[in-house]
Amino acid sequence: MTTTRPLRVGLFCFDGTEELDLVGPWEVLTAWAAVSPLRPQVLTFSADGAPVRCAKGLRLLPDTSAEQIGSLHVLVYPGGAGTRPLCIDHEHLAWLRAQRVTTPVIASVCTGALVLAAAGLLAGRPATTHWAAFDELAALDGSVLADREARYVDDGDVITSAGVSAGIDMALHLVARLEDVATARAVRREIQYDPAPPV
Amino acid sequence: MTTTRPLRVGLFCFDGTEELDLVGPWEVLTAWAAVSPLRPQVLTFSADGAPVRCAKGLRLLPDTSAEQIGSLHVLVYPGGAGTRPLCIDHEHLAWLRAQRVTTPVIASVCTGALVLAAAGLLAGRPATTHWAAFDELAALDGSVLADREARYVDDGDVITSAGVSAGIDMALHLVARLEDVATARAVRREIQYDPAPPV
Repeated sequence: MTTTRPLRVGLFCFDGTEELDLVGPWEVLTAWAAVSPLRPQVLTFSADGAPVRCAKGLRLLPDTSAEQIGSLHVLVYPGGAGTRPLCIDHEHLAWLRAQRVTTPVIASVCTGALVLAAAGLLAGRPATTHWAAFDELAALDGSVLADREARYVDDGDVITSAGVSAGIDMALHLVARLEDVATARAVRREIQYDPAPPV
Repeated sequence: MTTTRPLRVGLFCFDGTEELDLVGPWEVLTAWAAVSPLRPQVLTFSADGAPVRCAKGLRLLPDTSAEQIGSLHVLVYPGGAGTRPLCIDHEHLAWLRAQRVTTPVIASVCTGALVLAAAGLLAGRPATTHWAAFDELAALDGSVLADREARYVDDGDVITSAGVSAGIDMALHLVARLEDVATARAVRREIQYDPAPPV
């Protein structure tokens, strides 16, 4: 990045967004915004700006709408059960293709990759998704190069993450890429991300 | 647990709740609720039921209010900058002490432990909190037995977690304790919690 304009990050949310898909990256990116000289602006938005009901029932009031969000450097696209209707929503897919043209980085979490595939954004690309969604991904676009091992796949202008909690790791990678490793480590320390799954 | 009544879990939220403190356990516990024969009910609530603005700006619409939440088996108490005013809110601390009497398990995340300490719930107990908050914890109650190494401390009827992301590990432990290890492992797999911090 060589612009001095504030770096804008938008997290798209919709009915049926899986909660942690959205809030994992949100926590990492807003913790980054709190300390970074790049002054990143991190916002949530829904298609029409209205509240959304997430996959497990959490209700969110997004900051703004797709129309109002404006130009983004990074678009974060979470997964969740709500991705399935979006995969066949031609108006939404056209919007996503238009975002592709103006957005340097589109980063999905979990089954957000299905919508990216449905829009044609993963054609011929390496990509990952939730472990249970690779058949769906192949059905949407047989040319996607499935990576079943990666925690996230950074293909430059498109990043895809594995299921749910993988968005936390992907977002730390984004901070390292957009600023530097030392800053990403500081964010990791701030959210005390020294995971120790007890089971 | 030997009751056949549905197990009720309430996640308290307030202005200044750290987002991942709340949504990490929420994701784990609602993923558990989706598969468990114990039929856990998992709800968010704020003091008055009104929307809250989290520490990093995310706005949530809670399910209900403290008055309406009713009897809980588990109360999850997240941290965040908003805990500091709660530590000196005598009405709130009296409410928390009343919860203590009727709630078998109170589980804090991050600086949620400060409010538990302010209410006297950690007196003489081993406990943890965010790595940067141990001095505050000691100032609130010098009798707390600080555990700076643990990811979470299960002291039976009180559980405390380290900072932010530690709530995910604590919640998986709760599932293992309240149901069994196999179920907690299934939840872990569902949220693909195979963390791989890239920095």
